[in-house]
Amino acid sequence: MRQPNALFVNCRAATLTDDAPYGLIEDAAIAVTPDGILWTGKADEIPAAVAHYPRHDLGGRLVTPALIDCHTHLVHGGNRANEFEMRLNGASYEEVARAGGGIVSTVRATRAASEEDLIAAALPRIDALIAEGVLTVEIKSGYGLDIDTELRMLRAARRLAALRPVEVHTSFLGAHAIPPDYKGRADAYLDEVCLPALKAAHAEGLVDAVDGFCEGIAFAPQEIARVFDAARALGLPVKLHAEQLSNLGGAAMAAGYGALSADHLEYLDEAGVNAMAEAGTVAVILPGAFYALRETKVPPIDLLRKHGVPMAVATDLNPGSSPMNSLLLAMNMACTLFRMTPEEALAGTTCNAAKALGLSDRGRIAPGLRADFAVWNAEHPAELSYRFGFNPLHQCIIGGWIDIPLA
Amino acid sequence: MRQPNALFVNCRAATLTDDAPYGLIEDAAIAVTPDGILWTGKADEIPAAVAHYPRHDLGGRLVTPALIDCHTHLVHGGNRANEFEMRLNGASYEEVARAGGGIVSTVRATRAASEEDLIAAALPRIDALIAEGVLTVEIKSGYGLDIDTELRMLRAARRLAALRPVEVHTSFLGAHAIPPDYKGRADAYLDEVCLPALKAAHAEGLVDAVDGFCEGIAFAPQEIARVFDAARALGLPVKLHAEQLSNLGGAAMAAGYGALSADHLEYLDEAGVNAMAEAGTVAVILPGAFYALRETKVPPIDLLRKHGVPMAVATDLNPGSSPMNSLLLAMNMACTLFRMTPEEALAGTTCNAAKALGLSDRGRIAPGLRADFAVWNAEHPAELSYRFGFNPLHQCIIGGWIDIPLA
Ligand SMILES: [Zn+2]
Ligand SMILES: [Zn+2]
Repeated sequence: MRQPNALFVNCRAATLTDDAPYGLIEDAAIAVTPDGILWTGKADEIPAAVAHYPRHDLGGRLVTPALIDCHTHLVHGGNRANEFEMRLNGASYEEVARAGGGIVSTVRATRAASEEDLIAAALPRIDALIAEGVLTVEIKSGYGLDIDTELRMLRAARRLAALRPVEVHTSFLGAHAIPPDYKGRADAYLDEVCLPALKAAHAEGLVDAVDGFCEGIAFAPQEIARVFDAARALGLPVKLHAEQLSNLGGAAMAAGYGALSADHLEYLDEAGVNAMAEAGTVAVILPGAFYALRETKVPPIDLLRKHGVPMAVATDLNPGSSPMNSLLLAMNMACTLFRMTPEEALAGTTCNAAKALGLSDRGRIAPGLRADFAVWNAEHPAELSYRFGFNPLHQCIIGGWIDIPLA
Repeated sequence: MRQPNALFVNCRAATLTDDAPYGLIEDAAIAVTPDGILWTGKADEIPAAVAHYPRHDLGGRLVTPALIDCHTHLVHGGNRANEFEMRLNGASYEEVARAGGGIVSTVRATRAASEEDLIAAALPRIDALIAEGVLTVEIKSGYGLDIDTELRMLRAARRLAALRPVEVHTSFLGAHAIPPDYKGRADAYLDEVCLPALKAAHAEGLVDAVDGFCEGIAFAPQEIARVFDAARALGLPVKLHAEQLSNLGGAAMAAGYGALSADHLEYLDEAGVNAMAEAGTVAVILPGAFYALRETKVPPIDLLRKHGVPMAVATDLNPGSSPMNSLLLAMNMACTLFRMTPEEALAGTTCNAAKALGLSDRGRIAPGLRADFAVWNAEHPAELSYRFGFNPLHQCIIGGWIDIPLA
């Protein structure tokens, strides 16, 4: 059954179009057909062609585009609470490593998990995002670091989209870390595991984009370039974890490949910003990891603004550096810790997050786009970033339908 | 109808007793009667006297005492999202003040709100806490700064306890700020407003404790002492916002009055710690305000540990310096920002929070205490502090009853 025509009225709409701050329309109306949004504007200017559509009163609430979390690692095995606790009890990194901590502990737990295990563990995480109005989620592989497990992670990610009213976009992140058995042999890991896994995953239709981690503790730019060359040969877009802990020029390198996004970016310099601006690469800002790692160097928000680089905001939901399961909290942290504005934070989880995933059919409330909305018990969109640890979602509207069960 | 006898089995219990870290009992059982907890221990040591009680299987989940938020300002009018946004758009404090921002904006909105308005606004906030397993909440007045509104706030707080399955403990905070019409005349404000309001509120049974804000921008120690003297005359316990932004010796002064708690404490020195230790005054740690105000001076956790001062952790939920509505997030911030351990964070929202409210009947899982529990989808109590922006609550058990509707 297709969703019928509908006219949503009695709302304040943050459309994220350029007409006003937040694209805000006071006393708005939104006309929806089975093909998506047909018209949006002021309630006293409803065109005759849609005036007879069945009306849904939104009770004066705030409406935004449904949110998009464009950077997560939410499929993984295990958790790292023990390591968190050890460190707070004074253990050194070495002691944590000796106790089996660090990313290898997540790799071990993920390898040991069946596809069903991975799905069961991921469902509460994705449900918590959906409960905040998130209807599009990016999910990465990268805790397998062997061919079977990388594919199993991606299959689990795809299955989540069938189990919940959410669209999942996958990123292949075989180049996340060098597993212990390939220590000092990154190229051998790429040849024997990462690139074959990428080809196999692509052949199975599991890959929407290809990601990497460019950092001293992970892969060098020339190693990432090999992964990106393979992605290009397969016709897949790329993105990169870049400049999180040091400046290796990863963002500029990714921009050279026309990357959808470069993510983290605390150590990005103006040359890198320029390269991103020219390539149209989105800056994905990830304050959760900055917070959890107690970093002090903030990403160059002013330079990104100056050069017009679109900024997205995401959770980076992962068991190590960012066990944060709230996109609203990421928005607050982007404001509080990085001094982004609430309007930038909302653009970062709607229109710019869509752009970071290469999606042009969502992220704004405008004719031709999908009728996916979040309806909030809030008066003004700044409230979404202002509060923290609070979820004011009233309901989601999915493809024009209201009252779809979320879980 | 009284709750019948019950035996909760198949759980891991963090009892917060001294027997082990977290007082953790693997494969625990908890026997409950209408009078509270009768026995707790290992499942293979269940005494014959309770072995026949009806059993409730908790599915292997973690059980903790129900949580306690011992410092909130959750009854108030309006919000300060506009001010948050102005500042992030570069407005100075002066510009924000000229636009009507700051605490006076909350005072204005609270004075304009009816008791029903205050309750309606507070319900989603208290519901969000209850959804995290919080069954005891402290609520302060202090945004009225006139007699009528201070009493109305406290009446609203009392009413919340009748509307929800939560116990509310009120603190009279007339000495929160000096209202503009009393600028420079703190003693006149105390004589004409604060002390008469305290007496009237006490006469109406609205006051469980008396609080104040001792700071350069609020009240001096000798002014707080006048309020505390009045509290003592009425037989009411005291507590104090102290040493948040500077060291005025407020904590030691409060300890001299046998205060239940001194709260914030970023600038507390060792003499203050000593005074608190001698008086048995609890240190209430409030990382939400530290985070939101981007403070850099952390409270002296090491000194508090060294002198054995019990540490509680609370949200400080308020519309200005801490619009944080999650006690679990406060626990994570206490660990991440202040380097408390996950065990200290959990003690801070259970047994030590009870102590900060002068309550000896809750906060641990032990014979004689109330049968109020939180049941978590977690394996280990460290997980409660490790994740952020995620709520793993499975259910609350209230007075031994399961499946009580929370809202
Ligand atoms: Zn990441
Ligand atoms: Zn306070």
